[in-house]
Amino acid sequence: MGDRVSRTHDEVEIVAVGDELLLGDVVDTNGAWLGRRFAELGIRVARRTVVGDDADAIRDAVGAALERSNLVLCTGGLGPTHDDVTRPAVARLLGRRLVLDEAVLERIRSRFAAAGLRAPAMNRRQAQVPEGAVVLPNPVGTAPGLALDDGAGRAVVLLPGVPHELRALFDGRLAAWLRERGVQPRASIRRRVLRTTGIAESQLAERVEDVLDDLAPLSVAFLPTPTGVDIAITSWGDRSDGEADAALAAAEALVLERVGRFVYGRADDDLAAIVGRALADRGSTLAVAESCTGGLVAQRLTEHPGASAFLLSAVVAYADEAKSRILGVDPNTLAAYGAVSEETVRAMLEGVRRMAGTEAGIAVTGIAGPGGGSEAKPVGTVWLAAAVGARSTVRRFLFPGDRTEVRARSAQAVLDMLRHLLSPDGGERE
Amino acid sequence: MGDRVSRTHDEVEIVAVGDELLLGDVVDTNGAWLGRRFAELGIRVARRTVVGDDADAIRDAVGAALERSNLVLCTGGLGPTHDDVTRPAVARLLGRRLVLDEAVLERIRSRFAAAGLRAPAMNRRQAQVPEGAVVLPNPVGTAPGLALDDGAGRAVVLLPGVPHELRALFDGRLAAWLRERGVQPRASIRRRVLRTTGIAESQLAERVEDVLDDLAPLSVAFLPTPTGVDIAITSWGDRSDGEADAALAAAEALVLERVGRFVYGRADDDLAAIVGRALADRGSTLAVAESCTGGLVAQRLTEHPGASAFLLSAVVAYADEAKSRILGVDPNTLAAYGAVSEETVRAMLEGVRRMAGTEAGIAVTGIAGPGGGSEAKPVGTVWLAAAVGARSTVRRFLFPGDRTEVRARSAQAVLDMLRHLLSPDGGERE
Repeated sequence: MGDRVSRTHDEVEIVAVGDELLLGDVVDTNGAWLGRRFAELGIRVARRTVVGDDADAIRDAVGAALERSNLVLCTGGLGPTHDDVTRPAVARLLGRRLVLDEAVLERIRSRFAAAGLRAPAMNRRQAQVPEGAVVLPNPVGTAPGLALDDGAGRAVVLLPGVPHELRALFDGRLAAWLRERGVQPRASIRRRVLRTTGIAESQLAERVEDVLDDLAPLSVAFLPTPTGVDIAITSWGDRSDGEADAALAAAEALVLERVGRFVYGRADDDLAAIVGRALADRGSTLAVAESCTGGLVAQRLTEHPGASAFLLSAVVAYADEAKSRILGVDPNTLAAYGAVSEETVRAMLEGVRRMAGTEAGIAVTGIAGPGGGSEAKPVGTVWLAAAVGARSTVRRFLFPGDRTEVRARSAQAVLDMLRHLLSPDGGERE
Repeated sequence: MGDRVSRTHDEVEIVAVGDELLLGDVVDTNGAWLGRRFAELGIRVARRTVVGDDADAIRDAVGAALERSNLVLCTGGLGPTHDDVTRPAVARLLGRRLVLDEAVLERIRSRFAAAGLRAPAMNRRQAQVPEGAVVLPNPVGTAPGLALDDGAGRAVVLLPGVPHELRALFDGRLAAWLRERGVQPRASIRRRVLRTTGIAESQLAERVEDVLDDLAPLSVAFLPTPTGVDIAITSWGDRSDGEADAALAAAEALVLERVGRFVYGRADDDLAAIVGRALADRGSTLAVAESCTGGLVAQRLTEHPGASAFLLSAVVAYADEAKSRILGVDPNTLAAYGAVSEETVRAMLEGVRRMAGTEAGIAVTGIAGPGGGSEAKPVGTVWLAAAVGARSTVRRFLFPGDRTEVRARSAQAVLDMLRHLLSPDGGERE
């Protein structure tokens, strides 16, 4: 332990606790969120271990993590019920007794009282705190965070696993606690992510591979997502932030020169937000007509604040009847060409723009599966249309994947068609 | 190693590889999916370790996992680009050379040729296979799965990390490979999950805690999700499947007796699918009017095949103008009471039912944030309305959380209101 005292917290190991994570009842969204937050603080997540609700497994994993790293964050298993065993397991590992913390108990009681309820007796468990732990009060739930410092440079922090509680405690309490301990990384891990859509991973890599060596020691990674491929360029904290930013900017410029056409944004950018901003910036308005995506395009556009500035209306015309009645698609068009056809998607686009009186429009019709496919129109066949003023793009796609993937890819592709129409270079695609 | 030969593969450790997982660019959805699939095969996921794209870290994690478990699945890092190092790292750990597999290379070339493309040279890396590995051909991508058996009962399997490739290989190849090796668990891990919404975790636990001891050795866990709390009852493979099922059914009946009113489904059930089925079963039709949820309710209903049987139309009336123009909400109502009011939500509900001519309807209007809140109507204030024929429920909620959470909770709560109206006991709520 002695040789670790002098190390700063430039890395952390995370131990996530919960049978539900291993059995697959719950998708582990905390991992990604924590990874980003720690990177912002200049702390590298060196490893993440998921174990079940088992005191021995928790002790073993936290103990092993402490052998490698002097900061360990353990999430989950702090709830009020019998299957929550993180608190006693970690207390035992560190040789601490659990003692009742009256202040914590009082906060739990007040939380329930505020909702007009009496605190169930079992919530008392959550007021059991390892001796000497710093309590990080939970503003949005009953389980407080607990920070245990061994006085020799090693620390174990326990946070609840419920995502919004974890996030509130991390941002509101843990970040400050780390700063108080003098966590002062030499340089942060800095990362630029360019988000692409409409091009395969290896084609993307082929177009930039000859510049990759010039970029070292920056690392470049290609990350396929359900709706595109992200290009991540990382500076690992081996230089000052200023130098890192300059190197990253140069690398980004090189990559953009090669594949800029496919890049719709950076880091957390969502294509729907990008398109929404472009519409709002030019004072344009949008109407959306969706069949197989069933509301997904509208949902993505409205996920971001400010959509009311441009999204006048969206119609899910899922059934043929709705396509005719609400969007005014000629029943003869539907009969002659089918609901999934160039003619129908054009009629949906014009119908919804006319109805809402907007400059821009989007229309989607396709076969998301699992049923409904035929030899001529297999599952994954989707017609997409987008228009801005007099310019429009109408394209047929054959998307791979299951229902969810076909819907996700359809929404992404039609939003990207609109993005190209809104960009200065106009609606051309490679 | 010798003492492990006789062990069956009743547990597995997973090692997931990728800087993007640790840095948080990608949410780890494979973990949950694999957990479920392995449980179905009677194989318990004992631990899941996430490491970066680093050969030493991969070797260390896979090596440590092999010390504890004789089956290790390693996912990710099999792509065509330079940052994909899993193949050489594991080959070195197991003392195998990498050799070019012509059959794999040929399949990669054919995949590109089918799309009218030439295979980039870098995809050749993916045809480098550790000597003696069983190749599991990839039906949907270029990276094959690789199974390495040391002949002494221990195995390491490598699968790509891209979710749809992982899934296709697991279901199409790996499950069969495990069966061929005679993986024959004594009894499977069996789990019943009851999904609740509209009640807090500790209140749920309090109502059932006195029966928990009677259920041992079944374990009962409460799993908060963004839209409710799941109750998971697990039999851990310590008895025959028949006995386990009988015990689980008895436990489930006990729990349902206490909190059945809040239970909308089981395991993978989605509330939108449950409501959709109930509508289809009674030959009813639905129209949806959404403001702050912006298409989320429609998207959830259409995520499941068969929605065209009942969902006649859905309108996202995000702007006030759309509420009046499309749904026929009286502008005076909007002016007098505001867009987020009992009067407006009732008018949206009646407007959309009238427009679409449906028996059932849903309407949502609220303040999802981050802006738009006031003292009288803070962020999270949402009015929800549901109707089936002459019966309707209209309620005001104040949901905690950010924009995404408020939208998710609103959609879930209004779908649950409709579920109650469609159930034999009618629209009452506690």
